[in-house]
Amino acid sequence: MKLLRYGPKGSEKPGLLDSDGQIRDLSGHVPDITGAQLSPASLNALASIDPTTLPLVEGAPRYGCPIASVSKFIAVGLNFADHAAESNLPIPEEPVIFTKAVSCIQGPNDPVMLPKGSLKTDWEVELGVVIGSRARYVSEAEALGYVAGYVLINDVSERAFQIERGGTWDKGKGCDTFGPIGPWLVTSDEVGDPQNLGMWLEVNGQRKQDGSSKTMIFPISKLVSYISEFMTLEPGDLITTGTPPGVGMGQKPEPVYLKAGDEMRLGIEKLGEQRQIVVSWTKEGAA
Amino acid sequence: MKLLRYGPKGSEKPGLLDSDGQIRDLSGHVPDITGAQLSPASLNALASIDPTTLPLVEGAPRYGCPIASVSKFIAVGLNFADHAAESNLPIPEEPVIFTKAVSCIQGPNDPVMLPKGSLKTDWEVELGVVIGSRARYVSEAEALGYVAGYVLINDVSERAFQIERGGTWDKGKGCDTFGPIGPWLVTSDEVGDPQNLGMWLEVNGQRKQDGSSKTMIFPISKLVSYISEFMTLEPGDLITTGTPPGVGMGQKPEPVYLKAGDEMRLGIEKLGEQRQIVVSWTKEGAA
Repeated sequence: MKLLRYGPKGSEKPGLLDSDGQIRDLSGHVPDITGAQLSPASLNALASIDPTTLPLVEGAPRYGCPIASVSKFIAVGLNFADHAAESNLPIPEEPVIFTKAVSCIQGPNDPVMLPKGSLKTDWEVELGVVIGSRARYVSEAEALGYVAGYVLINDVSERAFQIERGGTWDKGKGCDTFGPIGPWLVTSDEVGDPQNLGMWLEVNGQRKQDGSSKTMIFPISKLVSYISEFMTLEPGDLITTGTPPGVGMGQKPEPVYLKAGDEMRLGIEKLGEQRQIVVSWTKEGAA
Repeated sequence: MKLLRYGPKGSEKPGLLDSDGQIRDLSGHVPDITGAQLSPASLNALASIDPTTLPLVEGAPRYGCPIASVSKFIAVGLNFADHAAESNLPIPEEPVIFTKAVSCIQGPNDPVMLPKGSLKTDWEVELGVVIGSRARYVSEAEALGYVAGYVLINDVSERAFQIERGGTWDKGKGCDTFGPIGPWLVTSDEVGDPQNLGMWLEVNGQRKQDGSSKTMIFPISKLVSYISEFMTLEPGDLITTGTPPGVGMGQKPEPVYLKAGDEMRLGIEKLGEQRQIVVSWTKEGAA
């Protein structure tokens, strides 16, 4: 099942994608797609609906983030050995955890805004894990049972803010528009093995990242289990699981960063695609 | 004005403290105390209510966190020169920012639970800033105009998780029960100058921390302005602004950490007091 939210920013409605790739309106069944709709029982109830009985949504509406009211947006750093190498950082002995501000979350195709003074805004295609049931000290063996599904995420990052401004990485990870998510939340049953999905990202039509979730250092089962030792994961919480090589910071002979007018396209097998245009900073924020 | 939330965990009601120190029920006026109730206009509307017209709450109910649905809980590290020294860390050149998981937020007097395997759980009395209006690239001069009020926070920290587990500090800062907040949100007009408030914390009756917000390296106006460059601060967001010296990690001749049965008491001038009993880990969480 592919769950989604569509419509103008701030007034998205819940929907699902039918087998013909058309959006169907779910608002007669659920008020929105939040943690409350992601429990196994709630997902089963949604799966029992015949999509052809749902109103067809005409046209090509905007996609929002497929989960409303995300309470935590946890990120894993350096989770691909080649990306650690291109970042000139050692392979971590245990997962590196940081936080993206939930205010950076947006739809998958909304513009990405360069923050004021940014010179080093960068891309990162990532596989996002959506928690379906409260997870606290869960074992690796049982961890995937707490996952509702998966999403495509661009973990947009400002490298100077992240690395050169002291303290933790959080300063360079949570700027407005730095969290494009979606188009769909694809439920675990439909994804199958999450550790064998192709991942790619292009800037202005040029392939920059081309990897697979199979080369993660710490697999998703480990990450969910590990993070649940440090904080309780709630339904609707997101974990973004690290990026394969090919980010701007790692380009040779020298780093390449985003500038206004650039186009990013990215995708993960089974999880859909995103497209963002990069725009300059304005005090009012991106469109 | 002192705003508060009272009642059993998960079903708190909004209230205020009247001039006799009695709780008055605000639920006839507002559904809860969230970001939506913290704008200047909303606070003015609440301030115009004669407290004696509100139902008196009998007995001594539990206090919850005075703000519901906090979306971001941002923390500032090493913001007191003496605390940086006791931590054997240099005075930062610009504010150190990290994140506390919102799932750690609890009432001011709820028990604090040692995480599984914890050997180094520590205390930190801190002054919390509650955002009242959306703040994005605000200047230092205007920053305090975006603040609804202040709260007392115990920034409970597991030092091994924070410092010895790789990556950022976030692992040791967001464990369940690590965010006691309250008892009240005291509005800015009632606090006056936030940079001249006494701060103290005792463990088992022994004074450990005894400081003042006047010795912050970066004042609150700077912190709000600075953080608003990296993320948009939304109404109801919290910033906890760092701790004065005297944490367990800094005790001489050797560090002292919390154990089950310990009692913490802490307070900040004008913002009230907290009391927490430390309890052992259980899978179900603290009471």
